[in-house]
Amino acid sequence: MANKKRILTGDRPTGNLHLGHLVGSHLNRVKLQDEYDTYILLADVQALTDNFDDPEKVRDGVFQVLQDSLAVGIDPEKSTIFLQSAVPQIAELTVFYSNLVTISRLERNPTVKDETKQKAKFKDSMPLGFLMYPVSQAADITVVKGELVPVGEDQLPHIEQTREIVRKFNSIYGHVFPEPKALVGGVARLVGLDGNAKMSKSLWNCIYLKDSREEVRQKVMRMYTDPNRIHPTDHGKVEGNPVFIYHDAFNKNKGEVEDLKKRYETGKVGDVEVKEKLINALNIFLDPIRERRSKYDAKKLLMEILSEGTKKALKTAEETMKEVREAMKIVKLV
Amino acid sequence: MANKKRILTGDRPTGNLHLGHLVGSHLNRVKLQDEYDTYILLADVQALTDNFDDPEKVRDGVFQVLQDSLAVGIDPEKSTIFLQSAVPQIAELTVFYSNLVTISRLERNPTVKDETKQKAKFKDSMPLGFLMYPVSQAADITVVKGELVPVGEDQLPHIEQTREIVRKFNSIYGHVFPEPKALVGGVARLVGLDGNAKMSKSLWNCIYLKDSREEVRQKVMRMYTDPNRIHPTDHGKVEGNPVFIYHDAFNKNKGEVEDLKKRYETGKVGDVEVKEKLINALNIFLDPIRERRSKYDAKKLLMEILSEGTKKALKTAEETMKEVREAMKIVKLV
Repeated sequence: MANKKRILTGDRPTGNLHLGHLVGSHLNRVKLQDEYDTYILLADVQALTDNFDDPEKVRDGVFQVLQDSLAVGIDPEKSTIFLQSAVPQIAELTVFYSNLVTISRLERNPTVKDETKQKAKFKDSMPLGFLMYPVSQAADITVVKGELVPVGEDQLPHIEQTREIVRKFNSIYGHVFPEPKALVGGVARLVGLDGNAKMSKSLWNCIYLKDSREEVRQKVMRMYTDPNRIHPTDHGKVEGNPVFIYHDAFNKNKGEVEDLKKRYETGKVGDVEVKEKLINALNIFLDPIRERRSKYDAKKLLMEILSEGTKKALKTAEETMKEVREAMKIVKLV
Repeated sequence: MANKKRILTGDRPTGNLHLGHLVGSHLNRVKLQDEYDTYILLADVQALTDNFDDPEKVRDGVFQVLQDSLAVGIDPEKSTIFLQSAVPQIAELTVFYSNLVTISRLERNPTVKDETKQKAKFKDSMPLGFLMYPVSQAADITVVKGELVPVGEDQLPHIEQTREIVRKFNSIYGHVFPEPKALVGGVARLVGLDGNAKMSKSLWNCIYLKDSREEVRQKVMRMYTDPNRIHPTDHGKVEGNPVFIYHDAFNKNKGEVEDLKKRYETGKVGDVEVKEKLINALNIFLDPIRERRSKYDAKKLLMEILSEGTKKALKTAEETMKEVREAMKIVKLV
């Protein structure tokens, strides 16, 4: 492990993982864990920022995301999966960093700006926790001295914020932290079953890893296709068509996909056949995930995995904090 | 202890205590410790808000304030003196509370507003830590379930902020915290030796507990009196006159003070006599403090006292956090 670079990644645990998460990041994590010393944070404290009035959702989410991550292929022998609320050093660093960031700098963060617009409920009353979550993310990354952070383009401002904090900390107190780098790429976006760019439980437009074969069938059968195509003999549009986006993402039989596309564009295939073949492809993709998922169905086992990972992360965090406290000249009690 | 109400009070440790601190709060604390279960916080983390680029000042300040507090009569058998940086539960609560307070609410805090005006260095770039310190104070108070907080009038908005957070927390997660009350009174302000309302090391206008008899003499001899009085025979003004303010505060011989005032107003006493008598009174007041102070001169002893107090506070804080985590449905690892 010593020679491997350290990655910090993670999730806000607020529900089960769906195919969008997989394409967006979790499939990539499974590859990365072979190459990097991977730390995966279940950010339950940060999930409370949006869900402070619904703590059950976050508590349940911890086990949902954990089970789903293991199902995808995250290997607890390779990746350190840990729970944010059990690592108080993250809160300690967040408070220390809060002196190194100005309010106006936080308000300029374009991702926070965008998210603010989306959060109608925060309209004239943004909670402090929302403004400061990029500071808390800097603590997440640096508490384990993360060197690489796999992110989508939209998360780049947060990595830049972390780098600024690290530079400021190191310049005032002496070198403690590496400047983490973003690991962009392999991070794609999947549209919802209805073609909506946003996948969300409330929109009923996602396929979850936990969905049964029957649920997958029902959902795919309701999927949006080309709205202008009425009959199987109409020439259809492949580009931007959710069913074909999913075929491209999950059907490993590329020949079949090419054939379907050609026939769709020339009015020689019905929606039902295209969807049946997608259902089949999705089940081929999901079956091994379902099998692993069933192995991790016991809460006791999940608890053990999370406890083990958290113990390891706590050790790393405490080593970091020892350096931080020395650098910051904090009184060391006997 | 069980039947005594709990008090939380404390200092930002940034230097030695002076007579202003004593009159303002520390003499009162010595009385309160007999009546209440007193917790005294050395808020080194919060001191870094203003002094993040001068951590040595804060580190040294911890021992300066501790030694001075013991010198005044704080009894470690009666009061629990503890170090903020060694109690991570305070940072954890601060982060939890940050979801329960809006930015606009914090910006409306009149004390923060006033202080912002005074802090030229933060002009267009207020650090996050500065805006959120009332949230951190709420964590200080509630982590030990403080019921009473001795404060000056100017600190009332902070107590109100804490009460709001407690009400919101209890209403969302169930009753965990008592609503702390301000204990106003016994908190007076002392002017500087130059008559300036602000006492500050940089203004050279304070008498420190650690000052020797010779230093006290020199400082009193340089004290401001009535600027319009040139000769001992001029009729002088007692009201607002620093020398008489100090006589009122520290000279226990009230007859002597009345006599001096009368003679001063009628031009029958010189400044030197008034000052000599003040020097004498101050030394009578400071001598027992100096004696106790010399007993606590060893860093090892101070470290032991602080470690013992912090251990006790950590136990209290962990009991509080156990309730907090349960109320917030936070996952409990094995």
